[in-house]
Amino acid sequence: MSEEGEEKRKKMSVGIFCSCPTNIKGAIESMLEYGYHFIVTQLAHPNYTREVQSKVPRAIGRTDRVLKSSEWSRLLVGQLSPNIDVDSEVDHIREHSTDLMNQELGFASHLGVPAVWITLTKPDNVQFARVLNDKLGSGFSYSVWVNIPMVHPSRFSPIVDVEYDTWDWWNDFRTYCNYDKRVGVVLDLCDVKHAIPTAELNRWIGEPVKAIVIPTSFFLANQHGKPVLSRLHQDIIKKFISVDVQYIIKNDTEGDLTLYVRYLNFLGKKLYVQDTMSDFVQGCEDFLQNPLQPLTEHLETNIYEIFEKDQVKYDTYQSAIYKAVEAFPKEGEVEPVVMVVGAGRGPLVQAVLNVAYTLNRKVNVYAVEKNPYAINTLVDRVNNEWDNRVTLICQDMRSYEPPEKADILVSELLGSFGDNELSPECLDGAQRFLKKSGISIPISYTSYLAPLQSLKIYNEIRNNRPADKTLQFCYETPYVVHLANYYQIAPPQELFTFTHPNWSEMINNQRYKKLRFRCEQACVLTGFAGFFDTVLYKDITLSIHPETHTPDMVSWFPIVFPLSEPVHLQAGGMIDICFWRVESCDKVWYEWCLQSPIKTGIMNPGGRSYFIKKH
Amino acid sequence: MSEEGEEKRKKMSVGIFCSCPTNIKGAIESMLEYGYHFIVTQLAHPNYTREVQSKVPRAIGRTDRVLKSSEWSRLLVGQLSPNIDVDSEVDHIREHSTDLMNQELGFASHLGVPAVWITLTKPDNVQFARVLNDKLGSGFSYSVWVNIPMVHPSRFSPIVDVEYDTWDWWNDFRTYCNYDKRVGVVLDLCDVKHAIPTAELNRWIGEPVKAIVIPTSFFLANQHGKPVLSRLHQDIIKKFISVDVQYIIKNDTEGDLTLYVRYLNFLGKKLYVQDTMSDFVQGCEDFLQNPLQPLTEHLETNIYEIFEKDQVKYDTYQSAIYKAVEAFPKEGEVEPVVMVVGAGRGPLVQAVLNVAYTLNRKVNVYAVEKNPYAINTLVDRVNNEWDNRVTLICQDMRSYEPPEKADILVSELLGSFGDNELSPECLDGAQRFLKKSGISIPISYTSYLAPLQSLKIYNEIRNNRPADKTLQFCYETPYVVHLANYYQIAPPQELFTFTHPNWSEMINNQRYKKLRFRCEQACVLTGFAGFFDTVLYKDITLSIHPETHTPDMVSWFPIVFPLSEPVHLQAGGMIDICFWRVESCDKVWYEWCLQSPIKTGIMNPGGRSYFIKKH
Repeated sequence: MSEEGEEKRKKMSVGIFCSCPTNIKGAIESMLEYGYHFIVTQLAHPNYTREVQSKVPRAIGRTDRVLKSSEWSRLLVGQLSPNIDVDSEVDHIREHSTDLMNQELGFASHLGVPAVWITLTKPDNVQFARVLNDKLGSGFSYSVWVNIPMVHPSRFSPIVDVEYDTWDWWNDFRTYCNYDKRVGVVLDLCDVKHAIPTAELNRWIGEPVKAIVIPTSFFLANQHGKPVLSRLHQDIIKKFISVDVQYIIKNDTEGDLTLYVRYLNFLGKKLYVQDTMSDFVQGCEDFLQNPLQPLTEHLETNIYEIFEKDQVKYDTYQSAIYKAVEAFPKEGEVEPVVMVVGAGRGPLVQAVLNVAYTLNRKVNVYAVEKNPYAINTLVDRVNNEWDNRVTLICQDMRSYEPPEKADILVSELLGSFGDNELSPECLDGAQRFLKKSGISIPISYTSYLAPLQSLKIYNEIRNNRPADKTLQFCYETPYVVHLANYYQIAPPQELFTFTHPNWSEMINNQRYKKLRFRCEQACVLTGFAGFFDTVLYKDITLSIHPETHTPDMVSWFPIVFPLSEPVHLQAGGMIDICFWRVESCDKVWYEWCLQSPIKTGIMNPGGRSYFIKKH
Repeated sequence: MSEEGEEKRKKMSVGIFCSCPTNIKGAIESMLEYGYHFIVTQLAHPNYTREVQSKVPRAIGRTDRVLKSSEWSRLLVGQLSPNIDVDSEVDHIREHSTDLMNQELGFASHLGVPAVWITLTKPDNVQFARVLNDKLGSGFSYSVWVNIPMVHPSRFSPIVDVEYDTWDWWNDFRTYCNYDKRVGVVLDLCDVKHAIPTAELNRWIGEPVKAIVIPTSFFLANQHGKPVLSRLHQDIIKKFISVDVQYIIKNDTEGDLTLYVRYLNFLGKKLYVQDTMSDFVQGCEDFLQNPLQPLTEHLETNIYEIFEKDQVKYDTYQSAIYKAVEAFPKEGEVEPVVMVVGAGRGPLVQAVLNVAYTLNRKVNVYAVEKNPYAINTLVDRVNNEWDNRVTLICQDMRSYEPPEKADILVSELLGSFGDNELSPECLDGAQRFLKKSGISIPISYTSYLAPLQSLKIYNEIRNNRPADKTLQFCYETPYVVHLANYYQIAPPQELFTFTHPNWSEMINNQRYKKLRFRCEQACVLTGFAGFFDTVLYKDITLSIHPETHTPDMVSWFPIVFPLSEPVHLQAGGMIDICFWRVESCDKVWYEWCLQSPIKTGIMNPGGRSYFIKKH
């Protein structure tokens, strides 16, 4: 692997359990020396029996002065005392536990630790959630790490009556905590004998998993006697690498502690898949972008530059243009007229000229572009690169009156959802100057929807509302997102298709469709992911549909249509969604609503929050 | 200077004018090689005569593809064509100029340059401002650099009738642009013969000055023949170093261009004053902090840690305690009782013990602290450092009932405005356990106000409103700020004084005062800066009043009380402000309003936006 490649591998952050070291500063120093990044430890020392309601000055735990505040805030995760049982059915235990928990949470806040660790050991944790939620509401700044097993032992026990799914425990707990983004989950890795089903693993990838706990007893010895993980465990860790979890070693055997960190670092390097896409997207995982409004706002240099970098996309376009020009009859001196509409800075014009050169045919090329600043570039290219072989038109394709009609209309007006940048409306306008025998590249495109669990996106929307927008507005807007921390609840289904040219008497680009998805296992619906594919010409296609994605094409991320509240789904339940594409004289928009498992209000009525302007 | 010191010197960013280089990429590359960070150049090439309203595709300027978008966005400031005259009285010139300006601003946006450069050459620029303001409103992302002379030549000309103050031009222009934070000013350095008066220079320090233009003809040759600036010019640059301006070389002579950058870098190192304060504050210039609420919220470890770092403050306290204990009669076996109220993690307790040790006297020390997590630290210190010589009390000083009364009450409850963290209310409560003969350290404290021009703070408040607050709320709140980009319009005046102990029958901590300030020169009032000083004991004092600031003390920044709109002031005009400290059963707050030059609504009535909770 090249040096550059090495730099780009995912950094593994590894912590370790240190229950109650006598000397915490010493313990931290040696763990840092071993290569660990943080320790998980109790803050309140178990040797102190504490009466909370007391005016006599009492110690709670270690004195804060043993570490610098910058050490408390970077190197420690503070575990609540394990004897705290706020969900006890015995009143005085519950009450005393509540006092202790409040005190320890306050102490954690005083110390400024980055995260507090709590462990769920039974299904009902409503008191636990209440005490915690109360603190979260009063501005506490730490994260909460909720620890549970990835797979509950009861699932494989022949003697128990009830099988627990710990995802249910987690789901109840974070629901009580109102999906607060500071509350994350820490999973104990399952053992090899009791492997987690793939669907459940995928569901965990859609949760805010902060860390995976790995007992040292799970490591095998390789031929050199060094600890390594089994293939099964490697496969699980590989899944989590895309969502940036941390790892915590639980030392339940004898052995050299440096070896586990070293092995996990090696694993990070080995498992991180490096391709064009992962290079391109690094750092923008789950980042919400507003879709472009290319009809009303001129694109800028940096956007054109990014578009033009997608070699796969333009190569595919060039193949389509090649086939179309090749198919054009060669008789006489007739040159095919190719018009590139929305030419931008000219990548498709270049593709047409490449085809003409390769086929050794004369082609009459027009470039239509409304952005005067892109025209500025095209003027330069026509004069200096293209030998004046291209006719430039600085007009909107919907109003341009050409001197001749085109045989081939080439455009790249598609958004992440296919039609969402008004390709249908633009091409319907532009086909005025297409011959009746002429063709459009693309010929057609189709949008797809899939139900989505992404609490990450739900929280991004909720927590980053601009001061001049309402929350309703923010939830009624689709976002373009490189999905990482998500679970796709069911396979995508086809939504709307548009075909060009469209010679119907009355063109209608409004659409309505109802889709039904089946939910395989309990999960949380937070919205729908949208994709598209397109037929450029004959068998030449482009796709961002997860199952048919054009390899290495990076131009489009999925689009997400949110719901304003998470909806709990049962295994085997149905999701019914109604989806509309609506048009008025000056804009186009989408509306959507759920019919099952619950009915929701129709989102974005009249395009009140999100719409694409036509002018 | 040590290596560490070198790292901390201010980085000088230096640009250079390149009017119309034939090859812009080449020009940039050589300027970067000379050591410059950016160039100022026209974007539209003067060789193109442009008809703006044309459907024929036309070039505007250079093609964007000559540079990468990351180069356009970092290395260039785009100058508008100098023949643009939107404020012409000739209709067709004005109209054509407006078209050209709109086109060039659009082109700048297309290229993604970080700043657009416009030059004001006359007093009335309202059309200029309108065209620009229109673009600013439509989401353009660049900054606007408004270029004017620091001192207008007319000021020194014997033959002109009108003397222009270019600050007026700037002030009008940015007022039309609604004080938009993207609009900054670039000043042509005045020449040595026509030096700028100090008061005017100070006023510029309170403006968003982005850059200073220095013609190469201003440089003198030193003994080695290298270019250097005169003492006068150095003094001007020294002033601007605190507000992070950039420098632009205008090459109007022959000479080696590398020498000017090298000299300016040398100057940055030489002129940057490095002291405890500047080390401490670096990076938090003009950053708005909300005042603490120490009575209702427990302070956290990192806050205690920062407080405890201020050696000057605790040394001064220790001197005061020393003098007070020393003055205590030595007869008999009576030990002075010293109570530290609000002991935190114990720095003042340590100071008392130091004094006892130095004087070789027994002192009966109590530490009263309501924060149980600070008590946790104190318990440890009492056992391990203080040999059980301190009595710990975990209670609010306002309700504590002590077994004996104190001779000396030591506290550090002062905020940036003296009384604003409720020191008066706390000490009035605590004096119950002070002997009638006892003393308080501090004995008294006084707040001060000064009128302030800081558009920076005005914009920080306006642009960073949290989604759950109204703008009114944000303007009715005082902020703790390390002032950098500001102009203090007049010297501070005394506001409120509190003295302890206060044995009055009826203690009244409400206050009212009216202050009158004289405004030396035209400027813009955006709020008031607050300071305090305190007498700890006899001649031992602490102060953050600008004229008497305790050297190297870093614990307190000034407090700022904003106004909701900037108020234009005339030279010689008066500023009248009314200021109240008001109290109810559960809170204390301030209200303030202007009476001159205009009357404003009373800010923060009833403490609706800002108050300090008592419980």
